[in-house]
Amino acid sequence: MAAYLAPLKDIRFVIHELNGLHRSRMARPQTDLSEEMVDALLEEAARFSQDIVAPLNVIGDREGARWVEGQVRTPGGFKEAYARYVENGWNALRCEPEYGGHGFAHLPAIAVEEMLVSANLSFALIQALNMGAVEALQLSASDAIKQRYLRELVSGRWTGTMNLTEPQAGSDLGAIRTRAVPDGEHYRLFGQKIFITYGEHDLAENILHLVLARTPEAPAGTRGLSLFLVPKFLVNEDGSLGERNEVSCLSIEHKLGIHGCPTAALSFGDQRGAIGYRVGDLHAGLRYMFIMMNLSRLNSALQGPALGERAYQQALAYAEGRVQGSRPGAGPVAIIEHADVKRMLLMMTSQVQAMRAFVYCTAERLDVASLLAPGEERERRLRQAELLTPVAKGWCTEVGQEVVSLGVQIHGGMGYVEETGAAQYLRDMRIASIYEGTTGIQANDLVGRKIVADRGEALLALLEEMRDVVRDLSGRADATGRRVAQLFGSSIKSLSDSLEHLLGLEVASQAALAVPLLMQLGYTCGAWMLARSAGIALDRLGDEAVDTGFYQFKLQTALFYMEHVLPKAQGHAATVRSDGMSVLDIDLRAD
Amino acid sequence: MAAYLAPLKDIRFVIHELNGLHRSRMARPQTDLSEEMVDALLEEAARFSQDIVAPLNVIGDREGARWVEGQVRTPGGFKEAYARYVENGWNALRCEPEYGGHGFAHLPAIAVEEMLVSANLSFALIQALNMGAVEALQLSASDAIKQRYLRELVSGRWTGTMNLTEPQAGSDLGAIRTRAVPDGEHYRLFGQKIFITYGEHDLAENILHLVLARTPEAPAGTRGLSLFLVPKFLVNEDGSLGERNEVSCLSIEHKLGIHGCPTAALSFGDQRGAIGYRVGDLHAGLRYMFIMMNLSRLNSALQGPALGERAYQQALAYAEGRVQGSRPGAGPVAIIEHADVKRMLLMMTSQVQAMRAFVYCTAERLDVASLLAPGEERERRLRQAELLTPVAKGWCTEVGQEVVSLGVQIHGGMGYVEETGAAQYLRDMRIASIYEGTTGIQANDLVGRKIVADRGEALLALLEEMRDVVRDLSGRADATGRRVAQLFGSSIKSLSDSLEHLLGLEVASQAALAVPLLMQLGYTCGAWMLARSAGIALDRLGDEAVDTGFYQFKLQTALFYMEHVLPKAQGHAATVRSDGMSVLDIDLRAD
Repeated sequence: MAAYLAPLKDIRFVIHELNGLHRSRMARPQTDLSEEMVDALLEEAARFSQDIVAPLNVIGDREGARWVEGQVRTPGGFKEAYARYVENGWNALRCEPEYGGHGFAHLPAIAVEEMLVSANLSFALIQALNMGAVEALQLSASDAIKQRYLRELVSGRWTGTMNLTEPQAGSDLGAIRTRAVPDGEHYRLFGQKIFITYGEHDLAENILHLVLARTPEAPAGTRGLSLFLVPKFLVNEDGSLGERNEVSCLSIEHKLGIHGCPTAALSFGDQRGAIGYRVGDLHAGLRYMFIMMNLSRLNSALQGPALGERAYQQALAYAEGRVQGSRPGAGPVAIIEHADVKRMLLMMTSQVQAMRAFVYCTAERLDVASLLAPGEERERRLRQAELLTPVAKGWCTEVGQEVVSLGVQIHGGMGYVEETGAAQYLRDMRIASIYEGTTGIQANDLVGRKIVADRGEALLALLEEMRDVVRDLSGRADATGRRVAQLFGSSIKSLSDSLEHLLGLEVASQAALAVPLLMQLGYTCGAWMLARSAGIALDRLGDEAVDTGFYQFKLQTALFYMEHVLPKAQGHAATVRSDGMSVLDIDLRAD
Repeated sequence: MAAYLAPLKDIRFVIHELNGLHRSRMARPQTDLSEEMVDALLEEAARFSQDIVAPLNVIGDREGARWVEGQVRTPGGFKEAYARYVENGWNALRCEPEYGGHGFAHLPAIAVEEMLVSANLSFALIQALNMGAVEALQLSASDAIKQRYLRELVSGRWTGTMNLTEPQAGSDLGAIRTRAVPDGEHYRLFGQKIFITYGEHDLAENILHLVLARTPEAPAGTRGLSLFLVPKFLVNEDGSLGERNEVSCLSIEHKLGIHGCPTAALSFGDQRGAIGYRVGDLHAGLRYMFIMMNLSRLNSALQGPALGERAYQQALAYAEGRVQGSRPGAGPVAIIEHADVKRMLLMMTSQVQAMRAFVYCTAERLDVASLLAPGEERERRLRQAELLTPVAKGWCTEVGQEVVSLGVQIHGGMGYVEETGAAQYLRDMRIASIYEGTTGIQANDLVGRKIVADRGEALLALLEEMRDVVRDLSGRADATGRRVAQLFGSSIKSLSDSLEHLLGLEVASQAALAVPLLMQLGYTCGAWMLARSAGIALDRLGDEAVDTGFYQFKLQTALFYMEHVLPKAQGHAATVRSDGMSVLDIDLRAD
């Protein structure tokens, strides 16, 4: 099994050259980060991911998390690695300095997260949950709650969870039944939650559960939900741990993948009720949850490039070492010499590069928007960044699955044997297009809230930005650059046609065509990233004494993407330009 | 978990209406099969698959086959089910009556095979192996061998294996090292084989290993390979079992899926050599193996529609029962009411229908060709059927993976939990595009041997047949039929352009674009099948007193396929029309 090697060169390219860290660095003015400091951080994160976290990936998969009488034991080594993670301050990157955080913007932080996810998705998920909880408290909790809980959560000494799903309430949060009954200064919670990531474990002394629940006489549906903080152990005024709260772990799931990560069913309040503290306003729970989920969606999107990168490294190493067949005159050759194996490797790396650039770009735009003073410009920028979020989540998690599956394919029969490790990425990756909102949910959000709601304004502005890239590349002397511009240019035209067509359809038809539109937009955004990269590569190749191999490869993978990947956008475009009635008209039970 | 219900209505449609059993029935003149007899057979097979084999699918996955000191124990219930399979004569369907077979052609037999695969792929694989061995012996063994072994193999009382792969010889069979040394009337074999499906098990008294090996002084590469029969137990002249031969099972693989099916590493001759009997001519082993593999490829292709069907049934049942969200005015609804869930279910069923029709059509064409007297017409027909075989294998096994993955997606979070059963189809299906020749190998065969070798003649004839379907549908009064014709018509044009372009390319470029071409051809063949089905449906809907629901659904799924699935062919076409240099020119190690 190939060891993980953090792709620092490409990460640096995306941060410094493609997205221009200088802009997002200012997002949190309290933090001063030079390019050199970012690079040092990345190298440190690379070492931690490679040396400490990555070796536990297979162990986590084989041992799995184990439930024993209400306790959950994480796989061997997770506890020690988590202790080092806390000690080294990795949990605190994006948190407010006031509570011990480092105050980094999303853009440098997301690179650290990518490396952790590549190294070991099951392990890395706890960070995503911690960050969600930190965001929720930073954003909406009272000062008293912040004072008592936030510092421990920022350091990672305590961990966080998000409790949304119930057996009857998955995508439909309005169906949540968990009750929160006022009891003096706090509430008593009663109910059952399922699919709670790291809902119980042995990595930290305490777990802070953030729970969506319904107060008595609250309105029905999502407008009646409030957010509560329910600690596993109650916390005394002096910050020390008190009694065990009435939260118990009933079981953990036996899943297709991410075996190392416990997915818990939790019971709140089987007798007097679990003590909980309201976070933010009454009945505003869903709003806070959405803000957290927006960030979680970026983290899920990241799983596409992160697991794709890991699978690619392993497939590349295998293809370089495995000798099969021969070439006339050359004798026996490694399978990387066979055109179709090379094609598959390029399908992997070109899409990994496109996904990475796209997720980082979305993060950078969120950073830049949050820097601006409230007003029209900030709203406009935020709307654009928010347009990209469901596309990143939906497209990267779908494409990520194809990429890791190609990794298995390149291994041939060995890919199907678990010992090889290629199949684990396939199993682990499969969850990403389901959790934090399925691809269908992302597409509904995209079409309903991000496109139709503003009559396509944010998307039209994006198309204009894309056209600038085409104009720039079309004028270059380099033939490859011009070909990239030509193919990317047609895809923008096609997207513009799809948008116009979609806006003319009934709501039901828009819903039936939402996922094909999301995929068309995703592939086009990927092309946008690689076309921009090609432009930068051409600039650098014109300079003296640069890393010619790297920039040449960027240029060539951009061309490969335009010829082998981007055409998928055409396929989706043809679907979008139907009227959706072939979906809506059929009675599936008539057969 | 939804019980498996054999889709007899669609199977009958494909056999009787779409492919016209009357033609292939004559393929083996010794067998007289009326339409009623075929229907009775199908119903019996449906009951056996549903009641006996399907309930063992999950057990097989959870228990798995187990290796204990060289013996392999199959999962609970497999032994009893196999005994009934033998007793009821299911193994003998396609075999020669002279040795106790039923003499059926491929077309009705393949329907029985589909049901077995849907019910339990791990179990059904033994049939595929038995059939391969029967074909090899029927085709090329001496009368003495046939007399001693064939009857037991036909009945299934003994089972067969195919021994090709060695650690250093996967797709590259020329690298095989297993030695066969002459020793009187037989040979002594020495070597190690891996990935041997049902290479060791407890279902039958004896196992007949068919082994590719190299005789002393044989030429290097594939031209030096001969085929040998190596029984697990030697067989005495009177047919009784004698001594244990020197074949031992070293281990079985721990795989992503098909856990119930043992995949063995076998050692031949660790002392005096395993006794083996040559089958057919010296150095002709690869030729025989290819004939067997052609049939195995159809069986692997079948796994696309078969597992797709099973996954569809389960996803449909879940979508009908799971209530989430509501529709204005309608209150809470089952998720099947949501447009995107419906779209995913249609992606599943339309592609399952297309794949089933296409695999059966390929089988029927092999039948029809084999009926003809040797001569030009037979050669022409056979070339056409052989053109379709790698397309069926490559396309159906790739599409099958997308279909079963959609089955997981429709289940949401529950799809990721193993207890639900949806994930097993994903794990089981993943092998199909790898074994019996990867998709890359199929595409090489398609482009090199089936297209370029005859300058596209067989494919051009196929395109002409497709145009007939368009002409027929275009003239209909029904608007849906005309729309189907229009969309299918453009895809034929596009395929014709791809062919012309491909024939003008260098060999290396053709190799780089072979898989995209195979996929374009596959999606177009699927459209061909559904366009023909739509024509038949329109005929029937014009009749009185027919099953209107079924034919209406056929027509509508054909339209859905043209709008939502066929556009993928366009995407591949755009890739095929590049020159392949963006694959060939890159040095993947330059990065």
